[in-house]
Amino acid sequence: MIADRRFPVRLDLERGTLELSHGSGGRAMAQLISELFQRHLDDELLLQGNDQALFQPPPGRLVMSTDGHVISPLFFPGGDIGSLAVHGTVNDVAMAGARPLYLAVGFILEEGFPLADLARIVESLARAAKAAGVAVVTGDTKVVERGKGDGVFITTTGIGVVPDGITISGDQARPNDRILVSGWIGDHGVAILSQRENLGFETQIQSDSAALHTLVASMIATVPDLHCLRDPTRGGLATTLNELAHQSGVGMQIRETDIPIRSEVAAACELLGLDPLYVANEGKLVAICPPEQATRLLAAMRAHPLGVDASIIGEVVEDPQHFVQMETGFGGSRILDWLVGEQLPRIC
Amino acid sequence: MIADRRFPVRLDLERGTLELSHGSGGRAMAQLISELFQRHLDDELLLQGNDQALFQPPPGRLVMSTDGHVISPLFFPGGDIGSLAVHGTVNDVAMAGARPLYLAVGFILEEGFPLADLARIVESLARAAKAAGVAVVTGDTKVVERGKGDGVFITTTGIGVVPDGITISGDQARPNDRILVSGWIGDHGVAILSQRENLGFETQIQSDSAALHTLVASMIATVPDLHCLRDPTRGGLATTLNELAHQSGVGMQIRETDIPIRSEVAAACELLGLDPLYVANEGKLVAICPPEQATRLLAAMRAHPLGVDASIIGEVVEDPQHFVQMETGFGGSRILDWLVGEQLPRIC
Repeated sequence: MIADRRFPVRLDLERGTLELSHGSGGRAMAQLISELFQRHLDDELLLQGNDQALFQPPPGRLVMSTDGHVISPLFFPGGDIGSLAVHGTVNDVAMAGARPLYLAVGFILEEGFPLADLARIVESLARAAKAAGVAVVTGDTKVVERGKGDGVFITTTGIGVVPDGITISGDQARPNDRILVSGWIGDHGVAILSQRENLGFETQIQSDSAALHTLVASMIATVPDLHCLRDPTRGGLATTLNELAHQSGVGMQIRETDIPIRSEVAAACELLGLDPLYVANEGKLVAICPPEQATRLLAAMRAHPLGVDASIIGEVVEDPQHFVQMETGFGGSRILDWLVGEQLPRIC
Repeated sequence: MIADRRFPVRLDLERGTLELSHGSGGRAMAQLISELFQRHLDDELLLQGNDQALFQPPPGRLVMSTDGHVISPLFFPGGDIGSLAVHGTVNDVAMAGARPLYLAVGFILEEGFPLADLARIVESLARAAKAAGVAVVTGDTKVVERGKGDGVFITTTGIGVVPDGITISGDQARPNDRILVSGWIGDHGVAILSQRENLGFETQIQSDSAALHTLVASMIATVPDLHCLRDPTRGGLATTLNELAHQSGVGMQIRETDIPIRSEVAAACELLGLDPLYVANEGKLVAICPPEQATRLLAAMRAHPLGVDASIIGEVVEDPQHFVQMETGFGGSRILDWLVGEQLPRIC
């Protein structure tokens, strides 16, 4: 980077901490942007230094999605708030069948936060965006007083383009449709909680945080008339199924034995008093498709690295009450309700 | 609103407070969205209940901008964090000459915050968006523990469409261009600080918070070859001019006597030890245009309710150092530097 006469003394990225002036709009903020953010985020539009990004989107319908990230701790096995802030929004965009294109990033930072940690987070965010092929085109930074925030909050907003002929929405599930999940359920929430509670499990469980848009692309290439896609984040698989049932005005019947749950995750949940079906995921999706397409869809998912453990877990049924019912491993049946209360605060 | 069997007991919007479960992704969050947010925010796309909004944008280049809002206090003379969160992002979109279309809204809320205050803020946000003609199409809500936030933070992201033939950017200022401001400078910052410090000035100074896109539309209709537009928010007029000088690689020469500052604002700044040129505005813009267009541009601005006090305040000059110089009221000259340090934390 070339020297900038505005900043005679370089930021101390090893021992420095955030000050309120870094959110002032003045010289200190310009320096933070120049020496920390732009070191990792170097999209041409961002470097122009305008308060907005200008671009010509490809033709077609667009989707827009926004997600605030307040996860605690900021760094966890399998990721950090930077990569999560990319994956979370890329996935919400992808769940409409869209190809993610542009990302806007808003930071709300706390005075006193170490610049070295911020740099790690920004670097991770930039790496995740590059890996996902999305351009970080615009951003914003605010700094609040010590004790008025919690280190780093990141709100990302994504735009993507939807291929012609694709209509995927939570209200499209129809009786007799098949319900699939793309892999192991509960990893993210258990990884975060283990870290937070300092639980020393023998095998460390990693967050599944990942960008799912390439999986989605190969799914819609195989089965263009996919009905629903949703990533079961906060509230877990059970809540996501209830949302979809409510939105589509249907019921669901799923089979416990077909839901992929790692034995370590099941064991950790038992220890922690959690139900894995309500634990957040950050790299999984639920798909609903016409029955005659389910086998092909499953094969397409399993052929993708992020879907190798995919499974057909049940069917959509008619039910004016919109219940999600589960056949348990013992042959019984129970109703999977919405998550009630707060199982795991600040999981994303 | 029709009764929803998922929520047998209605939210208490008079005496209730936010709980962590309202950010859980589960039933309590669904209820908060249904009974509080959707009561005011009723765009068709938002009501669909997907994690993303799908739309067909009009043809043309798009702009995207994001802004976090952390203003304290949340309610102030002339507005609140809800209306400000709309105006701030609408203006950033408009400063590319664009017509704002869609808004995404991300809330980061603190446990214990009164639901009645949240409802006021959401109502104000919805009203400001309707007045500005932008659709709130998607959103997100997170809740952090008491003491880990500060009531309400709102990050808004806007998308707008730029008319053909318009290229407005901070790097377009050319020597001999004229520099204009759209009206009184410093109102917002002084209004916030007066409220914060409980200063009882005789005449209450109101924030100028406003959506400037219709002013911009009439400006570009009159002068399509506008070079730069920027709203002088954090860091104030002086910092905005420095940003534009730096980005365009030019200097600037402005005249103090031509900068519109209300006498009450000047007096309050003197009392508070502030320089009004560094105080934030939320309903003003700086415009730079070719010299031969300046009079017509000024007339167009003054013909609009939000530009009646517009003024030509100076010229762009050649200067390899990119200094902003000001001829003072006494005929002297001083360099207006970037804002150094933090004059007014959490002003927007």
